[in-house]
Amino acid sequence: MTRIFIQGGTVVSATGSQLLDVLVDDETIVAVLQPGSTALGDPAAAATVIDATGKYVIPGGVDAHTHMQLPFGGTEASDTFETGTRAAAWGGTTTIVDFAVQKPGERVQDTLALWHGKAAGQCAIDYGFHQIIGDVNAESLAGMAELVSEGVTSFKLFMAYPGVFYSDDGQILRAMQQAGDLGALLMMHAENGIAIDVLVEQALQRGDTAPYFHGTSRPWELEEEATHRAIMLAQVTGAPLYVVHVSAKQALEQIATARGRGQNVFGETCPQYLYLSLEEQLGAPGFEGAKWVCSTPLRAREQGHQDELWRYIRTGDVTSVATDHCPFCLKDQKELGLGDFSKIPNGIGGVEHRMDLMFQGVKDGRISLERWVDVCCTTPARMFGMYPRKGVISPGADADIVVYDPNGHTSIGVGKTHHMNMDYSAYEGFEIDGRVDTVISRGRVIVDNGAYLGRAGHGRFVKRALSQNLI
Amino acid sequence: MTRIFIQGGTVVSATGSQLLDVLVDDETIVAVLQPGSTALGDPAAAATVIDATGKYVIPGGVDAHTHMQLPFGGTEASDTFETGTRAAAWGGTTTIVDFAVQKPGERVQDTLALWHGKAAGQCAIDYGFHQIIGDVNAESLAGMAELVSEGVTSFKLFMAYPGVFYSDDGQILRAMQQAGDLGALLMMHAENGIAIDVLVEQALQRGDTAPYFHGTSRPWELEEEATHRAIMLAQVTGAPLYVVHVSAKQALEQIATARGRGQNVFGETCPQYLYLSLEEQLGAPGFEGAKWVCSTPLRAREQGHQDELWRYIRTGDVTSVATDHCPFCLKDQKELGLGDFSKIPNGIGGVEHRMDLMFQGVKDGRISLERWVDVCCTTPARMFGMYPRKGVISPGADADIVVYDPNGHTSIGVGKTHHMNMDYSAYEGFEIDGRVDTVISRGRVIVDNGAYLGRAGHGRFVKRALSQNLI
Amino acid sequence: MTRIFIQGGTVVSATGSQLLDVLVDDETIVAVLQPGSTALGDPAAAATVIDATGKYVIPGGVDAHTHMQLPFGGTEASDTFETGTRAAAWGGTTTIVDFAVQKPGERVQDTLALWHGKAAGQCAIDYGFHQIIGDVNAESLAGMAELVSEGVTSFKLFMAYPGVFYSDDGQILRAMQQAGDLGALLMMHAENGIAIDVLVEQALQRGDTAPYFHGTSRPWELEEEATHRAIMLAQVTGAPLYVVHVSAKQALEQIATARGRGQNVFGETCPQYLYLSLEEQLGAPGFEGAKWVCSTPLRAREQGHQDELWRYIRTGDVTSVATDHCPFCLKDQKELGLGDFSKIPNGIGGVEHRMDLMFQGVKDGRISLERWVDVCCTTPARMFGMYPRKGVISPGADADIVVYDPNGHTSIGVGKTHHMNMDYSAYEGFEIDGRVDTVISRGRVIVDNGAYLGRAGHGRFVKRALSQNLI
Amino acid sequence: MTRIFIQGGTVVSATGSQLLDVLVDDETIVAVLQPGSTALGDPAAAATVIDATGKYVIPGGVDAHTHMQLPFGGTEASDTFETGTRAAAWGGTTTIVDFAVQKPGERVQDTLALWHGKAAGQCAIDYGFHQIIGDVNAESLAGMAELVSEGVTSFKLFMAYPGVFYSDDGQILRAMQQAGDLGALLMMHAENGIAIDVLVEQALQRGDTAPYFHGTSRPWELEEEATHRAIMLAQVTGAPLYVVHVSAKQALEQIATARGRGQNVFGETCPQYLYLSLEEQLGAPGFEGAKWVCSTPLRAREQGHQDELWRYIRTGDVTSVATDHCPFCLKDQKELGLGDFSKIPNGIGGVEHRMDLMFQGVKDGRISLERWVDVCCTTPARMFGMYPRKGVISPGADADIVVYDPNGHTSIGVGKTHHMNMDYSAYEGFEIDGRVDTVISRGRVIVDNGAYLGRAGHGRFVKRALSQNLI
Repeated sequence: MTRIFIQGGTVVSATGSQLLDVLVDDETIVAVLQPGSTALGDPAAAATVIDATGKYVIPGGVDAHTHMQLPFGGTEASDTFETGTRAAAWGGTTTIVDFAVQKPGERVQDTLALWHGKAAGQCAIDYGFHQIIGDVNAESLAGMAELVSEGVTSFKLFMAYPGVFYSDDGQILRAMQQAGDLGALLMMHAENGIAIDVLVEQALQRGDTAPYFHGTSRPWELEEEATHRAIMLAQVTGAPLYVVHVSAKQALEQIATARGRGQNVFGETCPQYLYLSLEEQLGAPGFEGAKWVCSTPLRAREQGHQDELWRYIRTGDVTSVATDHCPFCLKDQKELGLGDFSKIPNGIGGVEHRMDLMFQGVKDGRISLERWVDVCCTTPARMFGMYPRKGVISPGADADIVVYDPNGHTSIGVGKTHHMNMDYSAYEGFEIDGRVDTVISRGRVIVDNGAYLGRAGHGRFVKRALSQNLI
Repeated sequence: MTRIFIQGGTVVSATGSQLLDVLVDDETIVAVLQPGSTALGDPAAAATVIDATGKYVIPGGVDAHTHMQLPFGGTEASDTFETGTRAAAWGGTTTIVDFAVQKPGERVQDTLALWHGKAAGQCAIDYGFHQIIGDVNAESLAGMAELVSEGVTSFKLFMAYPGVFYSDDGQILRAMQQAGDLGALLMMHAENGIAIDVLVEQALQRGDTAPYFHGTSRPWELEEEATHRAIMLAQVTGAPLYVVHVSAKQALEQIATARGRGQNVFGETCPQYLYLSLEEQLGAPGFEGAKWVCSTPLRAREQGHQDELWRYIRTGDVTSVATDHCPFCLKDQKELGLGDFSKIPNGIGGVEHRMDLMFQGVKDGRISLERWVDVCCTTPARMFGMYPRKGVISPGADADIVVYDPNGHTSIGVGKTHHMNMDYSAYEGFEIDGRVDTVISRGRVIVDNGAYLGRAGHGRFVKRALSQNLI
Repeated sequence: MTRIFIQGGTVVSATGSQLLDVLVDDETIVAVLQPGSTALGDPAAAATVIDATGKYVIPGGVDAHTHMQLPFGGTEASDTFETGTRAAAWGGTTTIVDFAVQKPGERVQDTLALWHGKAAGQCAIDYGFHQIIGDVNAESLAGMAELVSEGVTSFKLFMAYPGVFYSDDGQILRAMQQAGDLGALLMMHAENGIAIDVLVEQALQRGDTAPYFHGTSRPWELEEEATHRAIMLAQVTGAPLYVVHVSAKQALEQIATARGRGQNVFGETCPQYLYLSLEEQLGAPGFEGAKWVCSTPLRAREQGHQDELWRYIRTGDVTSVATDHCPFCLKDQKELGLGDFSKIPNGIGGVEHRMDLMFQGVKDGRISLERWVDVCCTTPARMFGMYPRKGVISPGADADIVVYDPNGHTSIGVGKTHHMNMDYSAYEGFEIDGRVDTVISRGRVIVDNGAYLGRAGHGRFVKRALSQNLI
Repeated sequence: MTRIFIQGGTVVSATGSQLLDVLVDDETIVAVLQPGSTALGDPAAAATVIDATGKYVIPGGVDAHTHMQLPFGGTEASDTFETGTRAAAWGGTTTIVDFAVQKPGERVQDTLALWHGKAAGQCAIDYGFHQIIGDVNAESLAGMAELVSEGVTSFKLFMAYPGVFYSDDGQILRAMQQAGDLGALLMMHAENGIAIDVLVEQALQRGDTAPYFHGTSRPWELEEEATHRAIMLAQVTGAPLYVVHVSAKQALEQIATARGRGQNVFGETCPQYLYLSLEEQLGAPGFEGAKWVCSTPLRAREQGHQDELWRYIRTGDVTSVATDHCPFCLKDQKELGLGDFSKIPNGIGGVEHRMDLMFQGVKDGRISLERWVDVCCTTPARMFGMYPRKGVISPGADADIVVYDPNGHTSIGVGKTHHMNMDYSAYEGFEIDGRVDTVISRGRVIVDNGAYLGRAGHGRFVKRALSQNLI
C-alpha cells in the first residue's frame, strides 16, 4: 500500500501549529486536511494510518552542511554516505546537502562527478551537493555556470586553510561576481586563515601543543574579521552571502548589522556552538579535547557566546542550523595530532542529533516550536532551492515527514542512540526531552519506533533551484 | 451549495508560493490539495469551482488598525462599521480589528459593550476589538483582565493627545505591568504629546496655521523619543510592545535595536507613510493638505523615510502593515480646522486600498510576494491571537480567501474603486498593477469580479486569543 | 610678600606634562618659565619659593556640582558654605559651582539673591552658581536672561522628583529653547521620576522599605530613558545639554551616541559611581545603606557599570567628574527614612575627596594623568565659562594651584582626613596613593602640608561667561 | 640678537585661547607671560619684538605624513627635501615626518640611513622619519627595535599595492606584535589591495582607462573593510593603530566604533578629502583628473563623505590632519598613465596649504579654533612622540611658532602662493580667509610677511619618543 494517513497530530510550520491530518500518496504529500472533515470521504481509506495524537508532525530535517567521507588532514571523514545518511535518518533528518570538493588543478565538473559517484546508491535519504571551489580561476568560474544548470546552486569558499582550500580576496571577489551573475549562493568559511596560521605556529613554538590551543589560536576576532570582510566583498559585488558555522557572537553581530541594512547575508550555526565550550570540551584533560577540534572552534563559555547565539536564532539573524557533520574517530584519526594540535583532523560528528538538540532548545525556553522547524527544516530548504519540495508539510511536497514525540526521551551516547561511524560521541551523556518516533522519506517509513526500516539507495540526488530566501 | 473549490491558483504563504487547490466547506477550509491528485476522488464534485489559474490565492487581509465611526475632534469618523467594512471587503480585507475607546470616568467594560453595539449586525466581514485605555486606574486595570477573557487581548495607550487619550509614564508602567501579567499585548501611539503641544501652540502663535504645520510641529525626534521611552518602560515591566503607525525611520531604528537584543517589540506602519509625504501632500496649496492630516504625520520625503520604511518591512522589523483607517470628509469635517491646523480631525481613510498598495510594493521590487502576505495577513493574525483561524490558507482556518490577479489593474480614486464614505481619496490617481478578483469571507463570496455580493451582518466578532508572535 | 614661585614641579595640563616653573604675583599667575632659564633674571627673587620637585603642579580642582546647605527632604544639607568650601580646599578643590534653587511661585532672581546671601563672606574658595528652575513659566524664562548677564550661565532642570523639582517635557522644551537662545547650558537630572514614583510606591506596598530598595526602584532603564529623552528634546531645540551625575552605563551609551553624531551633549559622573555599588553599600545590613542613598542611585556591581564609566572617562564621553556633594548626617537626617527609604534625604558628601579618588584612577591605570586634570579641572572650567581664569596653569589665570604628591598617601575616613560636616564618611577606609600637599587659591596658600591656612570670606563669587566646550 | 618677544597676540592651544606674550631665547621658548606684567622686568628688553596684536600665535604646524622625493611608479615625487620643506615653511608647517621605505630584500637600517642621507643638510624645517616596512621578516622585525632607539618610533604597513609595499595579514600580525612589544605605533594604509587589483584589471579590460576609474575601482567598501581588518588584527595583538589618509566616512565609523570601546585606534585624514571629490576633480574632462589621482581616492561628493569627515574631526575621531604630500608633475609624471589610469603615479601635493585649508574650516564654522591647532599641531606632536618639544606654545618647547592673521587673505595657485615643485596646484583657485604672517623655526624667523628668510640645512632631524596619545 502506498498511501499513508497521518492522523491526529499537530503540524508545525515556521509560522504556527495546528491540528491537521496529512495524506501521503506514494512519494508525495497529496492533501492536508481538517481533522474530522468528511468532505472528501474517508481519507484513511486504503491508507496505512499513523496515529500522531499528542505528537508533532514536522517536515523532515534538512541538514545543509555535512561532509561524508571527506578527505581531510591526511585521512577521511569516518562516515560514508551510507553510514552517515542512515544516522541522519535515525535523527529525523531526511535531506542533507554535502560538499563536493575541487582542489587546485581539478575541474569542478569532475569533482562533482566524483562525489556523485560516492553517494549514488548509498544514501538512506535524499541528498544534494554544494560545490567547494578550491581553485578560483577562469575555468572553475565557468564551471560554476554548468553546475547551476545541474542543480548545484551553491558554492563554498574558504578564507581559512591557506594552501588547502584558501581563496584570496581577489578570488573571492571574482567568485562572488560569478555567483551574483548566476543567482547562485556563495557560502563562506569565514576565518582569517593567514593570521591564524601565524598564531598556530607561535603556539607550537611555545610548546602549546594540546587540543585546547587549537581554540586559543583561532580567536573570535579573526572570525569576526573574516565575516566582516566577506560581507563587504559581497556588498561590492551584490552577491548574497551565507556564512557557515558561525561560533562567535561578534561574527553574528556583523551579520545582523548587514542584514539590518537590507543586505542579503545569512548566518548558519551548529549545535556544538550552542552547547559545547572551549573550557569544558576543548580543555578536557590530556588529549581528550581532540574530540571537539573543529573550525570555527568552540568558544569560551565565560564570554557568553552561547546565550547570544540562541538569541540570534530567536531574532532570525541565524537563518539555519546545520551540523557541519565531519566525523573522525579518536583512534587513528584524531590521534594524528597527538603532540601537535594542528595535525588533528578538524571536525565533529552530529548529523544524527541536530533535531533533538534543537528541540531541547524549545524545551529549555530558548526558542519557539515554530523557530525549531524554521531553522532546521523550512529555511534551509528555501535557502538552498529545495522549497516547497522539502522543508514544509504541504501538498505537492515530497513526503519527508517526522513524527516527533515531545513526551518521549532520548539519551545520546555510544551504545545508546549513536549510529554514526565514530568511536565516541561529541554529546555523550546528553539527555533530550523528546524523541523521533517515525521518519518518512519520500513516502517510505524508514525509521519507526526505534527500528530502522530504510535502505541504502533509497535516497536520491536533489537537483536544486536557486535560493528563495533573499531579504 | 456550500462548497467552493479554488483550482489552479498559486497559494502564497509567508514562507513560499505553490500551485495548490483549496477546498472550502461551509465556513471553513477543509483541504489543501496537490493539483491533479485523485487520491480523494474529485474534490470539485459538488462544489462551486473558482478558476484561479494564473492568479494568487491568498489569505484574506487582516487590517489590525481601524477606527470606524470614531468620535474625535468634535466629529465622528465618516465610515460606519457598515460602510467601512464593505469598503474593506472591496479591497480584499476580510478581518479588521477596531478600537473601543475608554475615556476618563468610563468603565472599559461599558465602552466595549458600546462598541459591540455599534458593530453588531453591521459588518460585511469579521471584526475584533482592541481596547483603548484612556484612563489608567485600578478599575480600568482590573477591567483589562475581564476583557481578555472576552477575546479583547490587546490594549492601546497614547503618549500623545494630553487631556484626551494621554497616559503619563506612571500610568503606562502600570498598564504594561498588567498587560504583562495577563499575557496581553500593549499597543502604543508613540509621540511625545506634551512637547508637541508646546510646538503646536508656538506655531499657531507665529501664524503658522496651515495644514503643513501640523507636520512640522510633530518632528520625528518626538516620535523617536516616545518610541524609545515606550520600549524602555516595556523592558522594565517585561511586557511585549506593539508600536502603531510608525512613520519616522528613526523610530523604526529604535524598534529594530530593541528587537535585535531580543526584546518583544513590534512595529506597524501604514501605506500612507510609504507613499505620501510632508512636502507633496501636507504641503499642498491652500487647505488641501488637510486631507492628509494624521498623527503620526507624513514625513519629509527629502529625509528618506519611505525607502527606510520599505527596508524595515523587508528586514522584518516592521511586522505588520495596517491602515489606521480613520476617515473624515473634507467638507464639514476637515474644514473644522480652517485657519487652525490643530482643529483638523486627525485621520486618513485607506482600509480599501491596503492590499493593492502593498502589492504595488511587490511589483516595484520593494518586497517579496511572501512578505506581502506576511505583513498584510499572516503576522497581523498571529500578533493579535487569530492565527490559524485567520491569516493563512490552511485546513481548519476560516475560509477567508482572496483571489488576486497580478495581471489585473486597479485605478484608485473617487468615482473609480472608491467605496469608503469620504468625499475625497487620499490616494486619488494612484494606479495599481494588480487587482482583487474574488473575496471570500467565511466561505461566502462577497466580492466577485467587480460586484459586491456581501451583506451587513455577515461579519462576526472574533474572540481573540493571546498574541502568538513573540520573539 | 605677594609673590610665589613654584619651582621644580611637573606641570600637568589636559594635553601633557612638563617640568615648568610658575610665578604667581598677588592673585594671578604671571609667568610660566623654562626651568633654569635666566632670560628674565631670577624669578625666585622677592618670592616665596615652593619646592615642587618630584610633584605635580596642577590647576586647582573645579567641582561643578555641589549642594551646600540645600533644603531637601525636610532637612538641610549638613555642610554650610563655610564648612563645605573648607573641606573642598583640604581636598585640592579651589572652585565650586553650587545650585540656587527656585521653587514654584518664586522669582529666580530672588532665589539667586538668597543663595548669594548664604555664600557671601563664608567661602574658603571661589564659587559660582547654577540656577535650578523648579517652575518653568514665562517669568522664570525671562529671569534666565537676567541671570546670564549676572554670570549665572547654566540652568538645571529635573525629570525626577514630581511635585518638588520636576519639569514636564513641555517645560523642558521651553527652557531648552530659552537656553539655546541665550547660549546658556542646560543641565539635566535625567531619571523618569513619574515612573520611578510608581515603583517606589509599589516597593513600599510590598514592604520593601530598606535603603537597598531605593536602588532597585530606580532601575537603569529609567535613567537611560530620561537621558535619551533629554537628548532628543535638546536636539529639537538645538540647545546644548549637560547630563549630571550619570551612573548607568546605558545612559552614557546614549550620550556617547549623541556625541558621535556631533550633538552638543555632555556627561558628568561622580566618584561614588566609580567606586561604590548597590550590592556593597546600598545593600549594607540594617539601615546602614542609608549613608549611600542618592539619586541617580549606586548601580549593581555585577552589571559592570563601573568599568564602563571609567572607559567613558577615557574615551571623553564623560566630560567632567563632579561630586554632587549633598551631605546629610546619619543621625537625625538620614534617619528620617527609617522604615521608609523614600523618606531618606538623597545625597552623598564627597567634595573633599574627588581629586584624591580620581588620582587613584591614575594609579590604578584607569585613566592618564592628563585626563585626571582634564575631567577634574580644565573641562569643568571650560564647560561652565570660567576658562582660562580657572582650570589651567597659564599666565593671566587666577593663581588656583595644587601641588600634588604622587608619592604621598591619604587615608580617608572620619578622624582621618575628613573635614566635611558629616558624622560618617561615604568612603571610610579608602586609601589613596597620593596626597594634596599645598593648595593655593587666588595667590594665597590655604592648605599646606596638613595645615589649613585659609579663611571664610576669602572665596569670591565667579561671574561666569558662556560655555566654551561645545563640540 | 637671539631673543624674540611676541607681544599682544592670542595664543591658541588645543584647549583654549588667551592673550599672552611669548619670549623666545635662542631656539627655545623660555617664558609665557601675562601681558603687561612687570613682575620680571621688561621681557621685550634685548629682544626682537613681533607685534601679534589681533593675530593668532600658534605652534608651528606638524605634518606627520609627507613623501619627499619618494620613488614610486617608475618616477620620483617631485619635491626634494629642500623644495618640499621650504614650501612647508611658507605654509606655516615647521615639522614634517617623512617615510623611509624598506623594500623586499633591504635592511630597514640601511633604508633609514639612505633617507637620512637624502634629508641631511637640505631641510628648511625640522623633520622626523617613520619607517615603511615593505618586507616583514625576522630581520626587519628586529630592525624595528633598533630604529626605535634611534628615534624612529612609528612603522607603516600597506594592505594595498600587492607586489610593491603590500603585507599580508600574517605579516601585519607579526609587525603589530613587535610594535606592541616596543611601544611603537603601527601606521596602516588600509585598502584591500588584492580585491582592488581585480577591479582595476576588470576596469581596464572594459576600456575604462580614464583617471575617473581610479576612483571607482577603489570603492569605499574596500577601505572600510581593510580598516576594520586592521582594527581587529590590532586588537588581537594589543598594539595601537594609526590609520592614515582615511577618505571614506564608513572607514571612520569603524575607527569611531573601536575608539568608543576604548581601543587605541587613531584616524588621520587629509585636506583633499575634505574639499575635493570624485565627480569634480577625478572626473575632470580628459586626462586632467590625473592631477588628483591618489590612494585612498577622492570620494563621491554625493555620498556625503566630506560633511562626515568634518564631523569626525569635530568629535575627535579624526585625531590628526596631515597632507600625504606626494607631488608629481602633470608633465612627464602623471602622464605616465595616459591611457591607463593604473600607471598614473599616486599622489597629491599639499604640504604648503594644510594650515590655511584647515583654518578655512574654522572660518566656515566647521571646527573650532582650538580643534584647528589640535589636529594640525598638538595631537600630531603627541601622537608621534614629539610633545612638548613640538606642538605647543610652552616654555621649554622648541620655538616653532606661527603668527597667523585671521584678517589676512591667501590665494592658492600656481603663480600665487604656490612654492611646491609641481606644475599645477591641486587647490588652484582656492581662496582662504586667513594668512600665515610669520613663521619661526627653532627660534629663527624663516618666513615673514611674504618673504622667505630660511635656509636649507636649518632643519634638524627630530629623534622621537614613543607616542603619548593613547586613549
